[in-house]
Amino acid sequence: MSRLDSFIRRLEAQRACLDLAAELVGDLDGDVLELGLGNGRTYDHLRKLFPKRRIYVCERNPAAHPDCTPPSDLLLLGDMRETLPAIRSRLVGRVVLAHLDPGNGDVAASKALADEVTPLILPFLRLNGVLISEPVIAADQLQPLPLPGGIAPGRYHLYRRISSRLPP
Amino acid sequence: MSRLDSFIRRLEAQRACLDLAAELVGDLDGDVLELGLGNGRTYDHLRKLFPKRRIYVCERNPAAHPDCTPPSDLLLLGDMRETLPAIRSRLVGRVVLAHLDPGNGDVAASKALADEVTPLILPFLRLNGVLISEPVIAADQLQPLPLPGGIAPGRYHLYRRISSRLPP
Repeated sequence: MSRLDSFIRRLEAQRACLDLAAELVGDLDGDVLELGLGNGRTYDHLRKLFPKRRIYVCERNPAAHPDCTPPSDLLLLGDMRETLPAIRSRLVGRVVLAHLDPGNGDVAASKALADEVTPLILPFLRLNGVLISEPVIAADQLQPLPLPGGIAPGRYHLYRRISSRLPP
Repeated sequence: MSRLDSFIRRLEAQRACLDLAAELVGDLDGDVLELGLGNGRTYDHLRKLFPKRRIYVCERNPAAHPDCTPPSDLLLLGDMRETLPAIRSRLVGRVVLAHLDPGNGDVAASKALADEVTPLILPFLRLNGVLISEPVIAADQLQPLPLPGGIAPGRYHLYRRISSRLPP
């Protein structure tokens, strides 16, 4: 498999997970959280999936196509390890879907970021809310969900928040 | 269609065109020319398709993954409008497949580059050699080929060199 093959599979997995998650949270009320804007392609897909929801976006250096840049009141500008705690009062228990894809191709760095960010995201996710993550995540409050058909295990990850209790 | 959908379709079209072109030139002797290395994904795909051919790569600022960087004797370092004329004696009539994908998302700039580069590539293409291009190309020596199944017209382009005569 070439890197082109692998990249296409990764994008297809990402899209399939986003589409499935959108179905899973269709009946839940709340907001969406995109952890990293990047080039804005995934954000644009989320907008298509959730035309009526607020989509908050964390990004340190927004460089997406102007069409794919979030409105300023929903753009959390800065390091997400600082911006997420700052918005806690607005988002706690309000997020139905969060998506984490560092997308830098560095497996160790992605995992390290996921470990740092997970405790910040968890309080935002409402019960039965879904977390989609490229890096694997371990948390007692999260239950892994089956991936969409045709997606190889480990290529992407889906979790549902199953407990409203959080560690102290 | 979201930008994520569109990007996936574009990559799938690119891959399908590369795969079809590889079949079309399977019986021809000669080299491959990649016009732009970028992140090296397409180059890696070409290596898989053509394990026994020399693959020349034009690139101004190589920044691909080290695994996807061509050997130095096949890397034409610099602006392709300068490096292609400089290698003319080695490649004239020797190339069975050339691939042009500026990939910068700027339609006008891609078309302008294609117009500048086409007269430089044509002498390299051998009779029945194939040019794959993201921007549309017009040249009397090139016959448009049908795209692979499922690829929307205009998303990518395939041409076969049908004349060994070149304009003066």
